[in-house]
Amino acid sequence: MQTILVLGAGLSSSSLIRYLLENSEDQQWTVRIVDQHLETVESKINGHSNGVALSFNALDRNERKPEIEKADLVISMLPARFHIEVAEDCIELKKSLITPSYISPEMRSLDQQAKDAGIVIMNEIGVDPGIDHMSAMKVIDEIKERGGEITSFKSFTGGLIAPENDDNPWNYKFTWNPRNVVLAGQGGAASFLRNHRFKHIPYNRLFGRLDYMSVEGYGDFVGYANRDSLKYRSTYGLENIPTIFRGTLRRPGYCEAWNVFIELGMTDDTYKMEGTENMTPRQFANTFLPYHASKTVEQKFKEFIREDRMHLYDKFEWLGLFADEPIVGIKDASPAQVLQKILVDKLSLNDGDKDMIVMIHEFEFELNNESHKIVSHMVNIGEDQMYTSMSNTVGLPVAICAKKILTGEITDKGVTLPVKKHLYLPILEELETFNIKFIEKELVLN
Amino acid sequence: MQTILVLGAGLSSSSLIRYLLENSEDQQWTVRIVDQHLETVESKINGHSNGVALSFNALDRNERKPEIEKADLVISMLPARFHIEVAEDCIELKKSLITPSYISPEMRSLDQQAKDAGIVIMNEIGVDPGIDHMSAMKVIDEIKERGGEITSFKSFTGGLIAPENDDNPWNYKFTWNPRNVVLAGQGGAASFLRNHRFKHIPYNRLFGRLDYMSVEGYGDFVGYANRDSLKYRSTYGLENIPTIFRGTLRRPGYCEAWNVFIELGMTDDTYKMEGTENMTPRQFANTFLPYHASKTVEQKFKEFIREDRMHLYDKFEWLGLFADEPIVGIKDASPAQVLQKILVDKLSLNDGDKDMIVMIHEFEFELNNESHKIVSHMVNIGEDQMYTSMSNTVGLPVAICAKKILTGEITDKGVTLPVKKHLYLPILEELETFNIKFIEKELVLN
Repeated sequence: MQTILVLGAGLSSSSLIRYLLENSEDQQWTVRIVDQHLETVESKINGHSNGVALSFNALDRNERKPEIEKADLVISMLPARFHIEVAEDCIELKKSLITPSYISPEMRSLDQQAKDAGIVIMNEIGVDPGIDHMSAMKVIDEIKERGGEITSFKSFTGGLIAPENDDNPWNYKFTWNPRNVVLAGQGGAASFLRNHRFKHIPYNRLFGRLDYMSVEGYGDFVGYANRDSLKYRSTYGLENIPTIFRGTLRRPGYCEAWNVFIELGMTDDTYKMEGTENMTPRQFANTFLPYHASKTVEQKFKEFIREDRMHLYDKFEWLGLFADEPIVGIKDASPAQVLQKILVDKLSLNDGDKDMIVMIHEFEFELNNESHKIVSHMVNIGEDQMYTSMSNTVGLPVAICAKKILTGEITDKGVTLPVKKHLYLPILEELETFNIKFIEKELVLN
Repeated sequence: MQTILVLGAGLSSSSLIRYLLENSEDQQWTVRIVDQHLETVESKINGHSNGVALSFNALDRNERKPEIEKADLVISMLPARFHIEVAEDCIELKKSLITPSYISPEMRSLDQQAKDAGIVIMNEIGVDPGIDHMSAMKVIDEIKERGGEITSFKSFTGGLIAPENDDNPWNYKFTWNPRNVVLAGQGGAASFLRNHRFKHIPYNRLFGRLDYMSVEGYGDFVGYANRDSLKYRSTYGLENIPTIFRGTLRRPGYCEAWNVFIELGMTDDTYKMEGTENMTPRQFANTFLPYHASKTVEQKFKEFIREDRMHLYDKFEWLGLFADEPIVGIKDASPAQVLQKILVDKLSLNDGDKDMIVMIHEFEFELNNESHKIVSHMVNIGEDQMYTSMSNTVGLPVAICAKKILTGEITDKGVTLPVKKHLYLPILEELETFNIKFIEKELVLN
C-alpha cells in the first residue's frame, strides 16, 4: 500500500478526494486526509475503507510533520501562502508534493533542494493555473512542430453559473469566494502586449475595455484583462510574441455594470466607513453620489451612469441597491465588504444550481506565408454543489498527476509545472474521460 | 543667551532661519542649525554672528543628542517620519520641541511623558497644517461666542504660481515636491460630510468632483477633496457639524485635465513599466490607449477624452505628451515617475518666478434664526525663490511660536497643536506684519 496525504478538505478538494478513493483499490492506496473540521473530511470520505479522516491544524509543523513522514506523496490544498512550509518539510523528508497554486518566488528558490532530495514539487496543476497551461501548451507545441510562428495568444477563463440556472440580470452567481470576485483586478494595472506594444489598463477602466467572443451552444462572453499577462511569455516559451493577453470571462453586461461599482468607489477595501452597522443599501449608494438637496438617489445614480449606459440601470435596481432594507449589519466595514454583503444576498447559488467553467484560447500564427487562427475551448458544467465544475477542474488534474507520480509515469524532479508534453498530454487525455475536453478549430485567415 | 537648535535647513527652513537670526540680538539667541549640507546652512545664515552652521546626520541619535542637550528649544524641520525620535530625545533631555507636521499616533502617545518632563511638543504649526487651523479656529470661536451654530465648514489651501508668472495652459507650476503633486489623492478615498451624510470620492473621480470659488483680485479657483476631512471634526470641536469638507486649490481646468491622467492610469506608482529608459512621451501615452492598426496616438487620445472634454486637449499637446522626444531616460520607472519627468520638463519654475499660497475658509452658521456665511481668505505671494510663500507660511508661524515659548508667553505642556485662542491669536497677529493676513467677509443668507 502507498499512502497519500491530502492537506485540506475544503470545497476544492471534493473531486480530488473522490478520484483518489475511487482509484485506491486498483492502485493500492491509503488516502489520509487532514482538515480542521473532522466532519468535513468524514463527509468527503463517505465511509470508504481506504480513506482515513484526520483532524489537526495542518499549519502546525509539529502536527503536520509526522503525517508527512508516513506518506509517499503529499497534496497541499491549503491556502497558497502555506505551501512553502509544507514544501520545506517535504524536502527534508524526501516526499514529493503537488499544489494547484502559482509558484511563488520562495517556492521557485527550492528547486535545487528538491532535486537534491530526489522529489518533484508539482505546482500550477489545477484549472487556472493548470488546465490553462496544459491545453495552451498542447496547441503551442503543435504549431511550433508544424513550423508556425505564433504572433498572438489570448487566453480567457471564467467561473460562471450553468446556463440552465442563469436566471438573473447579471447572468452571474458566486460560484467561488465572493471576496475575491469583489476585489478582482485591484492592486496594480493590467499589463499585456498588443502588436509589440506594452499596454496597461488601470483598475478604474479594467471592466470597460473588453474582448467579445462566442462559444457555439453556449452563447456570448466578454473578457476583461488579468493583472499580469507578460509573465506568460517565459512560462510558455513565447519570449518574442507580439501579442499576449490573458483575461477573465463574464457574460455580456456584467463587466460594464461592474465598472460602475469601481467608478463609484464601492469596491474599495482600503478604508472603513462610519455607520455601516445600521446602513441600508440605499444609504450606501448615496455615500458615493454627490449631495443634492432635492434629487433622489435613483436620479443621481442615473446621472452618474449617463444616457449611454442606461441599459445597465435595471441590474442595479434588481440588486436592491436603492432599497432601504435590509441593513448591512457589519460594523466598521469597508465599501468592498458592504458591497459584498449586498451582492451575496442576491447572487448566491440556489439549491440545485450548477456552476460552469469556460476556457477559451485564441492563437494566431504564420505558416507558409498564410495567417492561421486556432481557437481552442472547453466548457465544463458541475455535477452538483459538492462536485462543482470548479472542484472537478481543480481537483482532477491534481489527482491524475498524483497517480502518475506514484505509478512512476512522471519522473521529473525539482520545482516544476505541467508545461512539458510528457506531462500535459497524458493528463489532458485522462481529463477527457471526465468531460473536461477541449475543442480546437483552425481557420486560414487570408 | 538662549540656544535654539534647528534640525534641517532645506527649502522650508529659509524664512524660519531668517526670522530667528533677525530676532537673535533683541532676544539674545544663539541659533545652531544642522543640515547634511554645510553650504546650505552657511548660505542661509549668511554670515550672521548669532548663527552657527553645523553639518552632521541629524537622523543619527548619537550625533543629535549632544546638540539637543545644549539647546533651550528644538525645532525639527526634518521629514515628518523622523520627528518621533527627536521627540523622544527632547522628553529625555527636557527640551521643548516644535514641528510643522501632523501629529502622528506615536507622537500623540507621548503626551503624558512630555507633560511629566515639563515640556511642550508643538505640532501642526506650519501652513497646512498650521495657519489653516489658527485662522479657522479664530472664526469658529468667534461664531460660537456670538451664539451661532455652525452648519457647514469648508476649507481649501493651494500652493500655486503667482499670477504675474502664470504663463502656461495648466496655470500651474511645481512650487513644491513634484512627486507629492503627482501622487496627490492616492491611497484611499476622500471622505467628508455633506448635510449629515457621509460622502466618499474614489481616487478615479477625485479631480472630477470640484468646488468652484473666486477671490477678489486673484480670479477663479477650483478645489478637489482632501483624503480625510472627517478628522477635523474633533480637532476643531465640531463633532456634530452637518457639513465638513477640506480641499486643495488649483486654477480652473487643471483638475479636469489631471483626472484624464488618472483615468488613463498614468499616475500609478505601484508597478514598473518595461522599456522606460528609451521611451518617449508619445510611446508612454500610447501604452495607456487601446491598440488600433491605423489610428494615431492623438486620435486615440481624443476619443478617450470624448467631445465634452476636448477643450482640455491643448494642455496635453503643450506638455509634449504626443512628442517623440525627449526620451524619458529613467530605467524601470513606474507610470507616475515617467509622468513626473514629462511634467517637470514643462512645469518647473523659471528664474524669477514666484509662488503663491491661497487659503479660503467658508463657514455657514445659524444665528438668531438667520443663516449667515463667513468667507475668510488669505493670499500670499513669495518674495523670491529662497523666501518663497511656502517657506514664509511654513517657517514664520514656527518661528513666532519659538519666540513665544522662549519668552514664556506660551506655557502649554504636552503634545499639542495651535487650536486654542491664547496660542493662535498672538501668532496670527504677528503673521499679519509679514503680510500673511486673512480677510473676512460676512453675509446674511436669508
